[in-house]
Amino acid sequence: MSDKMNRRAPVAIDVCGMAQTAQLLGEKWTLLILREVFYGVTRFSDIQADIGIPKAMLTKRLKHLVEIQILQRREYQEPNSRARNAYLLTPSGRELATPLLAMMAWGDKYHSPGKSRVTLINKNSGAALKIGVIEDQQPEVPLDEITLRIDT
Amino acid sequence: MSDKMNRRAPVAIDVCGMAQTAQLLGEKWTLLILREVFYGVTRFSDIQADIGIPKAMLTKRLKHLVEIQILQRREYQEPNSRARNAYLLTPSGRELATPLLAMMAWGDKYHSPGKSRVTLINKNSGAALKIGVIEDQQPEVPLDEITLRIDT
Repeated sequence: MSDKMNRRAPVAIDVCGMAQTAQLLGEKWTLLILREVFYGVTRFSDIQADIGIPKAMLTKRLKHLVEIQILQRREYQEPNSRARNAYLLTPSGRELATPLLAMMAWGDKYHSPGKSRVTLINKNSGAALKIGVIEDQQPEVPLDEITLRIDT
Repeated sequence: MSDKMNRRAPVAIDVCGMAQTAQLLGEKWTLLILREVFYGVTRFSDIQADIGIPKAMLTKRLKHLVEIQILQRREYQEPNSRARNAYLLTPSGRELATPLLAMMAWGDKYHSPGKSRVTLINKNSGAALKIGVIEDQQPEVPLDEITLRIDT
């Protein structure tokens, strides 16, 4: 057994981005809420209906996501209704696309094999895309060129 | 306001890899435990000391991670001690590197700016690496060529 099996983590929690993100987002509802917003579902009642989260919990989680600047509120008003809030991604929220899409690919491979109806494609060229590890200077597809194709 | 703000999620939770992974892993302790194992910290007492998780919770989370085949137990024995378990990544667990490294990059950028001491590099060439969205047929750096450089 290598000595690797007997050591402390080399990076303390307070200076490790993985630990920071785990502490900010490591909660089932938070990730499911972000999934909704990435799919364009931004209203309280729609999110609530889609994922079946208790209302008080959804209120709390959305407030937290606004506080940590992942979501921003935008007011909307329908005829004969009071103004309500929708929740949109901030610039830092939008960049969570990379970890969330990597989670999607992993989940599709190991926990929904053959069931996935979502393909990541380039909005302009239609080319299929993936998330991967590449050399630092290699070009990436910019997030605003990426879209999801849903096969119904 | 676009009509995108008023629709249901196009993909049901049970056929969406992102939702599956969120439900499997969306929990702060689970992600922090996986961070330990990725750093090579595999023994119960070491993980417990690093992240300060209550022992009963760590037992429960490790059991769950073994059940969903992300970790596997391996027995080890030190002189004059009873046999104990260490926890190693399974092949599917190892592939969580991509979402976890993407989380790390996001956390480093937005929540530990300037504090990160971890760089993703190619074990063979020493080249700096990143996680990004690329075309499906582009080559990726294989996970076993990736290592983390820790600046102390």
